[in-house]
Order: sequence, then structure tokens, then C-alpha cells
Amino acid sequence: MSEKFSIGVDLGGTNLRIAAYSAGVSFFETIVLPTRLSAGRDEVVKDLCEAVSALMARDYGDRTLRGIGIGTPGPLELPAGILRNPPNLQGWDGFNLKAAITTTLGHEIALENDANLAAFAEQRLGAGTKYGVADLCMITLGTGVGNGLVLNGRIWDGANGMAGEAGHMVVKADETLACGCGGRGCLEQYASATAVMRMARERLGDASPSTAHEVALLARAGNEQARSIFDTAGQALAIALTGLINTLNLPMYVLGGGVCDAWDLLSPTMFRELECRSYVYRLTKPEVLEPTCLEARKTYILKAELGPTAGLLGACVLGLETHPVAATVRESLAHQ
Amino acid sequence: MSEKFSIGVDLGGTNLRIAAYSAGVSFFETIVLPTRLSAGRDEVVKDLCEAVSALMARDYGDRTLRGIGIGTPGPLELPAGILRNPPNLQGWDGFNLKAAITTTLGHEIALENDANLAAFAEQRLGAGTKYGVADLCMITLGTGVGNGLVLNGRIWDGANGMAGEAGHMVVKADETLACGCGGRGCLEQYASATAVMRMARERLGDASPSTAHEVALLARAGNEQARSIFDTAGQALAIALTGLINTLNLPMYVLGGGVCDAWDLLSPTMFRELECRSYVYRLTKPEVLEPTCLEARKTYILKAELGPTAGLLGACVLGLETHPVAATVRESLAHQ
Repeated sequence: MSEKFSIGVDLGGTNLRIAAYSAGVSFFETIVLPTRLSAGRDEVVKDLCEAVSALMARDYGDRTLRGIGIGTPGPLELPAGILRNPPNLQGWDGFNLKAAITTTLGHEIALENDANLAAFAEQRLGAGTKYGVADLCMITLGTGVGNGLVLNGRIWDGANGMAGEAGHMVVKADETLACGCGGRGCLEQYASATAVMRMARERLGDASPSTAHEVALLARAGNEQARSIFDTAGQALAIALTGLINTLNLPMYVLGGGVCDAWDLLSPTMFRELECRSYVYRLTKPEVLEPTCLEARKTYILKAELGPTAGLLGACVLGLETHPVAATVRESLAHQ
Repeated sequence: MSEKFSIGVDLGGTNLRIAAYSAGVSFFETIVLPTRLSAGRDEVVKDLCEAVSALMARDYGDRTLRGIGIGTPGPLELPAGILRNPPNLQGWDGFNLKAAITTTLGHEIALENDANLAAFAEQRLGAGTKYGVADLCMITLGTGVGNGLVLNGRIWDGANGMAGEAGHMVVKADETLACGCGGRGCLEQYASATAVMRMARERLGDASPSTAHEVALLARAGNEQARSIFDTAGQALAIALTGLINTLNLPMYVLGGGVCDAWDLLSPTMFRELECRSYVYRLTKPEVLEPTCLEARKTYILKAELGPTAGLLGACVLGLETHPVAATVRESLAHQ
């Protein structure tokens, strides 16, 4: 039997990444393009589809195409595939991305929220495989706070595709500053890179550095105000995790994104607060927080393993697993 | 084919309820006993098993026993069936309830947390059937705040059986008063009947009535302090629901328990806060909050339909659906 491959796409606010993927080989061809947001959404869809078509037309020897998985910033209404006021794709509100791609490409695709795909990749190929879990919650501390849930080995989309917005759980009810989502006191306001920088300006004033990474360096050098920023982030994470752990009782929560480079600064506060706040965590805490093999029926909170390509990997795996494309697709395309 | 029936048990801190149940008939025989906690756990298990055996030995004509479902207050570690410091069964910490019942009864049983069974019953026989949903979250505002999740039509136990503790989501991070769970600022501290009474003592002083029901009467009569108690409860519910809705995006959240008799007092604040705080709710809010038929892909927050027998009904349905007992069981038992 011939080997299967898939094509995955990570549609980001800055770059468009398209890859051909095969299990065990990972990416064997990758295309990276700028996301031409200023040219309009139709042009971006055209760029995306041309790159996918280019990979579909390649001769990869015995390999046959199994499916195409595409990740996009959300909120994404599923199964329709309509974007709902996405902060990273300004002006795309109400755009039926799925219909646009399917029409332009001439093939069915599997479309997903990129944060969900990152969680899916961590479960299938990252932290999840190391520990062999079917259920996992991933929280990505980047510019915003992304989130994805995998339950019973499948992405949990929720009723409308809008599950996985733990970045907008309320962790400080009496906050007055508005969050980008319209709420107040969301996790994202204390644990994203944007939040780290805001708190640095508030607490360090003119001495505030220009990146979250530099705030971490300052904290490690002994600056108490800089340290306190990661205490705040760790506490906010503990409050959100208390809600998730007490409600879902999953075996694994994975934290990714740039802010997690400061794991040494934020995780002690996070674990300490979690022990105080979540009795389910207290009852299920592993002996060793990050062991090399799984203790059954414990709650693990771990750093992500896959890094920034997690979303693209997840799109590839989704294409491979969930969306069969007949082998004839490539043949008919080769004759176009 | 003969009709199937099941036996369900609701092991409560005050009463032990045992029922024979058949789909479409509901309970056709019920036994209610006091839960003799002071006599010790072995005596309680003996009472329970004797009552179940009595129903198993009955002649219900053509009906054959399909299974036995039992609900207990938690925390309950599953699949082992061990109680973990249950607040409503003092002294039962570490007790393997499942093994004790199975040994005494001589038959396999399906054991579950009672709040999960109430959610299961609402999905199978209550609010869930009216609206035809497979996913539902139930929150019961009683002495404490119970919670259960049904995902894809099945109870979500989590990795250890400890899922469904939304009563201990943090809704006020800077609360100093300790919750019974050891945490601080949990939903249960603001939305349970116990919390309503505590707030009444704090806010009404000597004028405080002696039940949550009377606090509601006082609020309806125009007492501002009494009203404010239900505003606090409604706000706490909105904060917890924001976390649940933004994370899980379920089609239905059901609120039950005695405090919900004050639905007219707490729900306006709850819905108003929810609209401010949860953008997933804003995007998926139904036109009519409590319509007679479901609008697809909306988020419904409804009062429970089944009342205090929900847990017993859930145990019966669980016995019927998930735990087949061979018909020979009854026959062999009849010859003992």
C-alpha cells in the first residue's frame, strides 16, 4: 500500500505556511509566504490556494494525498467556517473562509481554529505522546492567550466552533480595564506577552524594557518589580487552571508560547497557588512535576514541546486523519 | 422481547432512595430509608444492598433487570469507586464504596457522583430532551454547589472521576474567607443556599430571616440588602458561566437546586453580566432566552426541569444504559 500524505496550512496574521506532511517524516516540503492582508482577503485566499495546488501537483513518488487541513486565527464558527470578528484578521468579520477556499481550490478541506490545531498537535505528536493521554488542554501565552481542547483524542469544537477560549476566563472579577474581547479581568490581561509589557510599563515606568523576554531577564537579575509581573501571570494562570482542573479533571494541561520561556519565573507561583486553590489538583498532583514517564491518573501541567510550528503540524495531522481526498484528485489535477 | 428495567439508588446524607425504573414508566417501585450515618458506613451499605436485593427479588412480570446504577455524594475517585474526603459523608474518606457494595450485593454496579447523575438525567429526560442536546452542563445551587457535565451524551468523569466541580471555580480571586474545599473565592461561596444565608447575616444582621427562601421573599418585598444578595449570586454565576461557555461552548447550561427558586431575582443580573463578560455568549445568545423549541447553535441557560429526584432518575438511567446484568441474575437470586 502506498504511503499517505497530507497538506497543511497555517494562515497567520503575518505569514502563510503551507506544508506537505507524512507521518514519521514530518514536513517534506514547505512554502512560506507573507500574508498579504493589505491586498484583501480574496488575494490571501488566492495565494493560499495556489500554494496548496502547487503541492498537490508535485510528484511525491508513491505517496497519495489523503487530505488538506487548514488552520486560521479565530473566532471561527464551525462547521460553517465563518470568521467572527477575528482580532488578527481585521476586516474579515463574517467572511466564509471555508466556502472561499473550497470554491477557489476545487476541493474539500478541513478548517479549524489554529489554537485548537496546536493543542491537537501537542496531543498527537508532542507532550501528549510522551505521556500517552487522549485528553489535553493547551494554553498558548503569546501576543494573546490561545487555547485548545482535545477530548477523547479529538478536537473539542463546541456547539459553534468557539470552544477553547480559556484566555477569556475571568480571573479578576473587579478589574476595570477592558479586555480586547469586551470583557474585564480575563486571563489574557495578565498572562499574555502584551500583558507582561503593559504591567512592565505600569510597574517599571521609564525603566521598562521593550520586550517580554527582557522583562524576564530583569526579573532573573533580581528586580523585584519585574519578578512581581511573573507572579501576577502565574497567579492568573493558577486561577484559570483551577477552573479547568476542577471542571474537566483532564490528565494534562500544556502551556506554550513565548511567555513560557519565563517558566522558571512564573511556574513556582502557579504551582503554589494551584495547590491552595484546587482540591482536585491537590488530590491528583504527581510526585514529580515533570517526570520522564506518566504516573496514571495524575494531573500534569507541562511546557509545550512542539514550539511555533505546532499549529501547522496540527493542520497536517488533521488533513491526514479526518479528511480523505481520493487519490484520483491528484491524477485529475495533473491533467488540468 | 421482554421489557428492561433497572434499579437506581440515590445515597444521600439524609435519605437513601432506591427505585425500580423502566423507560417510559419512570419509577414503578420506590423504597425510602434514613441514611444511618451514625451506625457507620458498613450498616449504610448493608441497608442499601438489602433494599436493592429486595427489588431484585420482586416479580415484575415480563420485565428483566438490565443493571444497577448508584449515585453517591463525591468526591468519588473513578473507576476505583473510592470516596475522597466527602463533606456529606463524614468519616468515609478513603472508603471503597464500589467494592463494598459489589461484595455485599454479589453483583456488579455502575457507581457515579450524584451531581453527574443529575446532569445525566436532565440531558436524557429533562431540559436536554426538550431541546435535543447531547452536551449539557448542570449546576445545582443547593446546600453546596453541585455540577455535572454530559459530553457527547455521556457523563464526563474526567481522568479520576473528579470532573464536574464547577462549584469550586474561582469567581473572586481576592476573597479571604476560606471555602470548604480549602480554596478561596469559589462559586459555592456566593451562589449556594449556605452562601445566601451567610450573606443575609452579613448584610441584614438581626433582621436576617432563617431560610434562603425567606431571604428571597424579603428581596421581592423590596428590601435592597436582600436584593443585593441575589445580585451577588447572579454575578458569581455569570463569572463561572463565562469560563464554562468560553472554554466548552456547550449548547446548554442548566441551573437547578433550591436557590433557583429565586430565578426572578438572580437571573437578570446573571444574564446582564454574562453579556458583558462572555463574547462567545454574545455571539450565540438566543433571540428568546427560554423558547419552546431549540434554535440551533445557540447557548441556552435554563432552569432545571426534573427537581430533587434528578439524581435518582440519573442512577436508574445509568443502570439501564451502561451496565447490563444477565437475566439469569434474577433467576439465580430467586433461588437463594
